[in-house]
Amino acid sequence: MKKKIQVNAAIIIIGNEILSGRTQDTNTGSIALWLNSLGVKVQEVRVIPDIEEVIVKTLNEVRKKNTYVFTTGGIGPTHDDITAMSISRAFNLKYEINKEAFKILKAYYKPGEFNEGRQKMAWTPANAKLILNPTSGAPGFIVENVFCLPGVPSILKSMLGGLKNEISGGKPIISHTINLRTVESEIAKSLTTVQNNNKDVEIGSYPFFRAGKLGVSIVIRSTDKSKIDNCDCQILEFANKKKIAVVSKN
Amino acid sequence: MKKKIQVNAAIIIIGNEILSGRTQDTNTGSIALWLNSLGVKVQEVRVIPDIEEVIVKTLNEVRKKNTYVFTTGGIGPTHDDITAMSISRAFNLKYEINKEAFKILKAYYKPGEFNEGRQKMAWTPANAKLILNPTSGAPGFIVENVFCLPGVPSILKSMLGGLKNEISGGKPIISHTINLRTVESEIAKSLTTVQNNNKDVEIGSYPFFRAGKLGVSIVIRSTDKSKIDNCDCQILEFANKKKIAVVSKN
Repeated sequence: MKKKIQVNAAIIIIGNEILSGRTQDTNTGSIALWLNSLGVKVQEVRVIPDIEEVIVKTLNEVRKKNTYVFTTGGIGPTHDDITAMSISRAFNLKYEINKEAFKILKAYYKPGEFNEGRQKMAWTPANAKLILNPTSGAPGFIVENVFCLPGVPSILKSMLGGLKNEISGGKPIISHTINLRTVESEIAKSLTTVQNNNKDVEIGSYPFFRAGKLGVSIVIRSTDKSKIDNCDCQILEFANKKKIAVVSKN
Repeated sequence: MKKKIQVNAAIIIIGNEILSGRTQDTNTGSIALWLNSLGVKVQEVRVIPDIEEVIVKTLNEVRKKNTYVFTTGGIGPTHDDITAMSISRAFNLKYEINKEAFKILKAYYKPGEFNEGRQKMAWTPANAKLILNPTSGAPGFIVENVFCLPGVPSILKSMLGGLKNEISGGKPIISHTINLRTVESEIAKSLTTVQNNNKDVEIGSYPFFRAGKLGVSIVIRSTDKSKIDNCDCQILEFANKKKIAVVSKN
């Protein structure tokens, strides 16, 4: 049997607006779902402020522990956009004008509109590889295993597609959900037994309240479809014995 | 002048469902906005999996660096609910039946319905102080500066109100937003000047796209209303000079 290697990632959300509660982060979900499909598991997310020393310290901590690191935010033209500068410092690289980025941005704007603010977006760590931005011109960049993306969700999403070939993942992580008409405490013991009998499968239990009715979503995650099927059977078996209705499966 | 003391907090979101992208975290926003009003600034958020050693390590790291720590998730009745056990280990406390929690839960359920799964929710670190749950009975708990809350957003929100007296914050953090009809690169330089002239005020710049039009939200945050007013004037001044329309302020 081939040795199973788990490919892991961390996400660093850079932005005071998330920490203050003003803005709801949605980039974690977009990146995580996309990475799952490539066989990469997100094992931690950090939300940190726009403070250079915090960015440098956090990045240097997580980039050694993860196959990939994704940062979001802080690559625009304003004073609080300090991600590129901070990443340069973390890697001890020069922070300089990236000629390719400069060329892309210059071509993107009308003559005379490529002002100082916009030129700032051409600065990256030395020799960074660019991530093309089909939505708004300004590229992201890659340094070693660190991928720097913008914070605006729609722009970030449009850039993920072009990154597929940069990621060497494992087997795609499959997620299977069984929604039961019950409450968690009714199935806790049986579900523990299923988890104990299937230790290498991730089983989560999440109560829900929809259309006036309580229920529990059981989420089974694995790269191995047959293991998921196995758990599925064992869960349906105890649900059947307890006369618990299956609301839906997906 | 009284020495300014910044009261800080960290939030630890415990849950595989957030890391997998299945569920969108909204608890960060709820806790952060509530803490702002109490004069407490969230300085970091960690999203971590339901793994005991990760919970213990993360908690022990952040609880020393922050005045307060809030955890969400993992205090229900199922096998993946391991927060109370992990917090006990982090503090080197016994993980045991909390008599008060047992009493509350026993009274909450109908006779005969207080089963093994539900009894699990009465287990806390030894001598933990309970956080009452007006929505669904099962309490959260406090150990030293660590507040453990459930993951279900509506239940979490209902529990925050009762915690007010447990928090000694600073002056409430005020947030003021100016929405301008412009793009970031047009104002980047002027905004940098305003930030440099007002170093102890947090100024963020966030592009938006609403009703088919581009704009920039400038968010000014401080505990001092007069400093916010000062920045507001300086921003309106450069907007006026540049003939940039103010869409709204709030």
